[in-house]
Order: sequence, then C-alpha cells, then structure tokens
Amino acid sequence: MNLHGNNFIGEKLSATGTTTFSAVNPASGETLAPKFSEATREEIDSAVALAAEAFETLSALPAEQIAAFLDQVAEELLRLGPDLIARAQAETGLPEARLLMERGRTVGQIKMFADLIREGSWLEATIDRAIPDRKPFPKADLRRMLIPIGPVAIFGASNFPLAFSVPGGDTISALAAGNPVIVKAHPAHPGTSELVAQAFRLAITATKMPAGIFSMVHGVSHDVGLHLVRHPQVKAVGFTGSLKAGRALFDAAAARPEPIPVYAEMGSTNPVFILPGALKKNGAAIAEGLVQSVTMGVGQFCTNPGLAFGLNGADLNSFLEKAGQVATNAPSGTMLYQNLCANFNKGIAGLENVSGVRVVGKSAATDKQRAPATVFTTNAQTFLANEVLHEELFGPSTLVVSCDSATDFEKIARALPGQLTATIHGTEEDLAQHKNLVSILQQKVGRLLFNGFPTGVEVCPSMHHGGPYPATTNPMFTSVGTAAIKRFARPICFQSFPDSALPTALQNKNRRNVWRLVDSKLTKDDLVG
Amino acid sequence: MNLHGNNFIGEKLSATGTTTFSAVNPASGETLAPKFSEATREEIDSAVALAAEAFETLSALPAEQIAAFLDQVAEELLRLGPDLIARAQAETGLPEARLLMERGRTVGQIKMFADLIREGSWLEATIDRAIPDRKPFPKADLRRMLIPIGPVAIFGASNFPLAFSVPGGDTISALAAGNPVIVKAHPAHPGTSELVAQAFRLAITATKMPAGIFSMVHGVSHDVGLHLVRHPQVKAVGFTGSLKAGRALFDAAAARPEPIPVYAEMGSTNPVFILPGALKKNGAAIAEGLVQSVTMGVGQFCTNPGLAFGLNGADLNSFLEKAGQVATNAPSGTMLYQNLCANFNKGIAGLENVSGVRVVGKSAATDKQRAPATVFTTNAQTFLANEVLHEELFGPSTLVVSCDSATDFEKIARALPGQLTATIHGTEEDLAQHKNLVSILQQKVGRLLFNGFPTGVEVCPSMHHGGPYPATTNPMFTSVGTAAIKRFARPICFQSFPDSALPTALQNKNRRNVWRLVDSKLTKDDLVG
Repeated sequence: MNLHGNNFIGEKLSATGTTTFSAVNPASGETLAPKFSEATREEIDSAVALAAEAFETLSALPAEQIAAFLDQVAEELLRLGPDLIARAQAETGLPEARLLMERGRTVGQIKMFADLIREGSWLEATIDRAIPDRKPFPKADLRRMLIPIGPVAIFGASNFPLAFSVPGGDTISALAAGNPVIVKAHPAHPGTSELVAQAFRLAITATKMPAGIFSMVHGVSHDVGLHLVRHPQVKAVGFTGSLKAGRALFDAAAARPEPIPVYAEMGSTNPVFILPGALKKNGAAIAEGLVQSVTMGVGQFCTNPGLAFGLNGADLNSFLEKAGQVATNAPSGTMLYQNLCANFNKGIAGLENVSGVRVVGKSAATDKQRAPATVFTTNAQTFLANEVLHEELFGPSTLVVSCDSATDFEKIARALPGQLTATIHGTEEDLAQHKNLVSILQQKVGRLLFNGFPTGVEVCPSMHHGGPYPATTNPMFTSVGTAAIKRFARPICFQSFPDSALPTALQNKNRRNVWRLVDSKLTKDDLVG
Repeated sequence: MNLHGNNFIGEKLSATGTTTFSAVNPASGETLAPKFSEATREEIDSAVALAAEAFETLSALPAEQIAAFLDQVAEELLRLGPDLIARAQAETGLPEARLLMERGRTVGQIKMFADLIREGSWLEATIDRAIPDRKPFPKADLRRMLIPIGPVAIFGASNFPLAFSVPGGDTISALAAGNPVIVKAHPAHPGTSELVAQAFRLAITATKMPAGIFSMVHGVSHDVGLHLVRHPQVKAVGFTGSLKAGRALFDAAAARPEPIPVYAEMGSTNPVFILPGALKKNGAAIAEGLVQSVTMGVGQFCTNPGLAFGLNGADLNSFLEKAGQVATNAPSGTMLYQNLCANFNKGIAGLENVSGVRVVGKSAATDKQRAPATVFTTNAQTFLANEVLHEELFGPSTLVVSCDSATDFEKIARALPGQLTATIHGTEEDLAQHKNLVSILQQKVGRLLFNGFPTGVEVCPSMHHGGPYPATTNPMFTSVGTAAIKRFARPICFQSFPDSALPTALQNKNRRNVWRLVDSKLTKDDLVG
C-alpha cells in the first residue's frame, strides 16, 4: 500500500503547504507513514472553484449517470480490499470484524442512494395545472421539484472511518442530490481517507464525471475547516463530531454574508428510562443489554446510552449489581486516538470525585491507552444539582440514576437538553402509566425506543438520526437514511414553462415514473398535455 | 368599532408598559385612535410561558380539532365585516377592492391549511417493518412522522395587512402544524391587527382550544422583536419584511445558546429577461404588462419586477418608449406608510443622479405622500459597475437595462444575488437559444416564470415563494402554499413501539387514510399487525 499524503484537488494531487502531520496507531502509539500535507487556503480555494465549475455540469446530468457513478464508488471501495481494512485498523484501533461490517454498511448505503435517485420520487414533483378561465384571475401552470444547491463541505467523523467519514452518508447524500463535495478528512485516519479518495477518483474516471465533483483536503488546524465553511461558493456543510467543533462551524456559517446551513450531528447522552414493571420482570437482562450497548465500539457511538434512570428499591439494587458485574468483566478497549482515551479517563476520574456518585463496576484497564467500561450510580437529587452529570462523556461509561417517583422521571426528562435518542424499558402497563413521560421525551429526541438499545442505527427511510439542539444544529433533518438527501436540495417552481423546457420529472409525460402530486392528488399518471 | 390598544397575552388584555404609539393614515397624515401599548419584556415572557404550557395540550390534539379551530378563525375574520376593511384602509392606504380580495385569499388559505391537516399526508408517515430473523442482526420496527416543534414567533408584514400579517400564512401554517404562536403585530396597522386578534380569541373560545396558543404583542422598538426571538422557549421564527430587519432577527436567533430557525422572506429585485424574439413580437404588450406589474399595489409586492433586461436596438427603443408612456400615464399611489414613501422618493432621486441612468417615464405625483410610477433605463456596463442599481427599491419603479449580447445576459445573471423570482419572456426558439441563461437563473431563484409577471403569488402545493439569500434566510422552504407547514415541524422516529402507544398516523390500521411509505412503497393500505 503506497500512500502519498497529498490533498486531492479535483483530479490533481497537491501538497504545497508546509504543515504536515501523521497518523498514530492508538493501540501501539506507533507513528504511521507517510506524512500528510495540511491544505493551504489556496488549495481549498482551488478545490471549491473546481466544485463550482463542476456543479453546472453535474446538476444537468440525468439521475441515472449519478447513480452509475455512486455504484462505481461502491465497487471501487470493495476493490481496495484488505489494504483499506488494514490501514483503518492501524489508524483507529477498531477490530477487523467491525471494519468489515462497517464497509458493508457503507457500500450498502451508497447503493441505497443510487437506487433512491434512480427511482426519483424524492424530488417531490408537484404540479398544479393552469385554469385559464378562472375568475377573477386565470390560474397559471405551476410545477415544483427539488434541485441541488451547489458545492457542499463535508467533515469526516473519527468514530466511523468509513460509514460517517469520506465515503459516508453525508458525502453520498450530497452527491446523490447532484452536488459536488469537498471533504475535509479526519486527521485521525488520513491514510484510510486517502485510499477512499483514490476509489472516488477511479470511479469519476470510469464513469466520466466532471473532475471537480470530489476533492479531499487534509488538516489538523481549525483554520482548514473554517476557511472551507466561509468560502462564498460553499452552500452547505455536513459534520459529525463534538459539540464544540460543530458549534464553531455553525457560528462561522451563520456569520457569513450569505449564511448557509450546517448539518452538525454532535451526539448526546441518550437517556434510558427503566420503568418499574420492566425493572422487576427483566432487570438482569436490561442491565446486561445496557452495558453491552455502552461498551459497543468502546462507547464511541453517538447513540451510546450514557444515562439510565430507575426507581429506588430492591429491583434497582439488583439491576445495579448485575450492571456492575457485567462492566467489571467487560474488556477494556482501545479508543480511536490517544487524546480521546486520555479525555475519557480524565472524565471518569472527575465523576468518581463528585460527591454522591459512586462506581458500581469498572473493568480493569491493562494500560492507560485502554478505556475501562464503567458504571456509575447516583440519586436524582445529586443528578439534578450537578450539570457535569448531564454532559456526554465520550467512551464506555454510563450513569444509573435512582429516582424516587414517576415525578422525578418527568422532572429529569424536562431538564434534559435535546437528544438523538431516548429509550423506555417497560411493560405495556408501564407505558400506559407513564404517558406524560413519553410526551415529554418526544419533545426532546429524534428517536424514541421501546425495550431496545439505541446503538445500532438502521439505514432506511424511516430512520431519524437527528434531534433537538445540542444533539444537532438542525433537528429537521437526519444524517442517516434516505431522508438525508433532503439536506442538500431546495425547491424551485416553474411557472408557465413549455413542456420541453421543463426538467423530465415535471413534464406532462411522466417518463421517470415518479410519484407526483398533481392538482393535490398523488399519482404516477401522465398529464394530458 | 371600539379598539383598546392592549396586547393579547393569551386570553388576557395587558398594557403594563409606558411606551405607546399610534397608527397614521398614510393618505391623510391623520393620527388614528387609540394609542397602542408596546409590550414589555414581562408581557412577552408571559405570552411565551402560556404558549409553552398550551403546546403540551395542543400537540396532543387530533388534527380534526385544530382544523375546526382554523375554520372558525376564518369565519370570525369574515364576521368582522366592513369594520376590518375600513380600519385596514385607514391604516394602509390600500383600496377597498384590494383589501376585500386579500381577505378572500386569507380566508381561503386558512381553509386550505385546515383541509391539509384533515387529509394528513403532510405528516410524511414512513414505516419500515421489523425483520426479526435478519442476519447478522434483527431489524427493528421503525416508524417516522413529523411532529410540531413548540412556540413560534411570527412577525406581521406591512404590505399585506391580512395575508402576510396576523392571520397570514406564517401564523396559520405554524398553528396547523400544532404549534402555539406569539405574533408581533406590524406597527403600521395595529388596529387591523387588534381586530384580527379578537377574531382569534373568539375562535379559541368557540372551539375550546387552550388559551395560550395565540398571543399578540405590539411594539415599535426592535427590542420587542429581539426579546421574543431570544426567548429560550421560542423554537422558530416567521418573518416577512426588509433585509436589514430579517437579518437582525436571523443573527439574534443564530447566536442563542440553542439556535433556532428564522424563516425570513426579505424580497428581491425579480429580474425580467426579455429575449429578442419576444421583444420583436410582443414588445409593446410586455412593456405594458411590466409596468402594470410594477405599479400593482403601488409596487409594494415582494415579487415586484424591479429590473428588466433586453438587447440594445430598435425593438428595445420601442419597448422603452411604450413602458415610459404607460408609467407616465399611471396614477401615483399612496404607499403603506409615510416613511416608506419618503424612502422611495429618496431612492428615485438617487437613481436619477447616477451617471448613465435616465428616466424614460414617470407619473405625476400630486403630493409628496404619493409615489410616482417610474421607469429608468441604463446600459449593461453602467449596471454592472454600480452596486446601488442591483438593490431593491421598494415601490413602483423598474430599471430597464440594455445589453449588447446573450453573453451580457449571462454575465448579469451570474452577478445577481438570490431572488424570489426571475422571469423570461421569449418564444420557444428564444428559450432553446438561451439554455445557459435558464440554467444560471435556476440557481438564483425560487420561481422561474415564462411569459408572465411575477406579481400574483398563487396559494397552492406547487408554489415556492422563497429563494436563495438574500431573498430569504432559508431557501429550502416556502412562505406561501401548503408546503409552508413544513417549516414548523420536525421528524421523530419510534422504534419497536407497541401499536397502541403510537400516534394514529403510524399505527398498523391506517385510520387517518394517509399516504405512507411502508417498506419503501407508497400506500394507503393497513398493515397486517
């Protein structure tokens, strides 16, 4: 595997800057070759200019051509074979089995978006026909659909080096909608990103797409990302990462002369409410499932359940005992990069020092580069009085809060900030008795689970991976599933256009066979011209 | 007609502040009774607190109850009868016929939203059924739909005292989605707004809705609006007005600890491109139509065509002559308030002083409170060199720019900022010869017209009244038509919920008979449970 460490500025490799950085194997501490070149402002400007130029071509292409390109990207990704998996393993510490599964999911979602745009109903074609003799004014022919918006900046996430990184849902949904992308690779896995960028270049050549539709820049300094977000020709931003970084990008985008949307998914504590019937009936199984969910991927999922709530009493004591045992016996894991692990260990130490919080189980860490699975407990009063307990601690830990009553549950649910998910464990009877809690949680979350665990995000049309701030900067959109494409398109309305000058999806004859709302009725029928 | 000048804080009338203001008849300059009380911060806080409380009730109500309430609002508006029209006439200078038509449109769009939520497909119900035996992991049952977001702040516009003001599309679409509203009345027509607020109160009582779903506050100072937008319990903002005011609200909302969306529609210059074939064939008719569109409602429409472009030559000279005549013969009109007219006259004087710009026709203003219809002309070079010529001048004027070539058209189209609309006048042959221009304009506008005029915005599903910044702060949404409701809702996904605990639209039996995407197929069928 030969890596060069350059930026991909359209079809050109470029390394004109003086700042370089390297990836580090988080398990061994070893520095990995080669050196990667941080993009200069000029390189970023070139990438965006190429994207803007390519946009005019791309937005005029039939969906079938973009779909064929996406399928080719999937194929080229698979063709990278064990090299990609080996490099990703070295850069992230994630096990091979997990990376193979993640590659499968990534390839699957690329093909899903290809199918989505081939089918075409996502365009929301809407037609209201003219009524020339309407009184007092004639009604004009109006036809509306979604169109792409322009160059999109995508920030790769560290925790899924494929599924939420260079070839992830943000990049693919932006391309599928007909937009060029400029990807800022995550500096924790630059080699993985380079291999993936090569796959994109091969797919672009093979399917004769305009070169500027994909560029990838490297960078460790915030300046690279901010310069990209502030570029006047960038029209939207996709990001997955920390609240601090996501908010900085959001603020920069909002302060532009022309503000642009930032779709930042910034994680959450994903509270789990264990209602009394379920706690009595299934306490041990829920405890085991919870700790498994917490330790999955070394706790590095955005949907990691970092908080759990149950009613004080013998059932909760048994639950805590079980959860503590499972955590104690869990393996300590290698986190994505060493700073992340150091932060986690600092966070754990901080929680241990909060008066009223105690550890009920913790796995043995073989060295300081490994994160111990940890289960804490406290009571509702301590929880409500300490803001630090409400914050996400990225890693394999959770805090179980013992409450005195359903009123405590409601009070806590109201006090929670916006979340990607919340979970309720209960019997159907529990659910009927806690309707208020369910209502309150609906206002706080993007996804509400019953008797499950929030890790494991299905890629499908009904998924909503999003939620009120600070879980995301825009609760109206998802970053997972087909609906993610809606972030990168906007409506346009054509009034009284001749049929031949309209986009295919809006012409009288429904050649693309898409669902259309015609005079307020959904139909696939042709219009009589 | 007895007006009190109070704020409507839920069902309570309140005037605890010390700042008052009055409406002024823009035609006569007469100050109209009574004095209106600017809302204090405490009054605003009370209104929002009531809204937040009412939200929990409102968001749980069946759509039918909200629809019945909206229908009642429409009925109560009509019941205000000639009092409403008379007060609106006195406060805005708009003629009776126009206000009667505007009332008809307002009532029509209220009923349209009632029908929309009764039908229910706007909820985007999406279901993916469980596959318990899927390998390597079972697939969970996932069901997604749109839910309301919470209290919404609405800013009434001055130019449509009904259709874009207190009972306008912003207020009604927010309520239809299940959100309470706090309306900031426009200070140019506070009496009209008070009458409308009374209609809302009567409808709330008649249909037993929670009192806090509608409040209305008065204010002339920016502080009233900013305090409302910054309130932590306000979740979105609807606004129609100037770029300066819209941007100030956007900036305040983006800087909040929890940023919220601002849907500000801020107008544009709505360029009209008159292609050579059309100019030759229909020049006189287009000139007449253009000036009629420019003077409609004294040029106070957001879609007023303030710029027109044609190719230099005899056809354009005839066009200018005709346009000048029509403008000269047009009546000068009373603008909505006296400052607006003073600004317009200042703007006109400014344009007259730009070297290379000349007046080709101007109606005689009988006094300085009346705005003269004015047609200017200049060439492409002067236009491209003077930023001031690209800006919207609110009122009945337009600037016709003579270009040398199709290249000039394209250069100018690229230089234009985002627009609500652009219009092309052409033959089908013109259109085929100017494909580049059409492509460029698509990237700049929300609505693209062929052989028509942009004033007159149809209220229907295919309308898009929006566009790239600075036309709006969010080009993905419309403020007119049924799609306007999407601004005030967000998705939630339920995972593995028992059927009885799901919202009706997501239950197995499709009781609401809505279109649902089930396992990627659109259907109205029940699910076999």
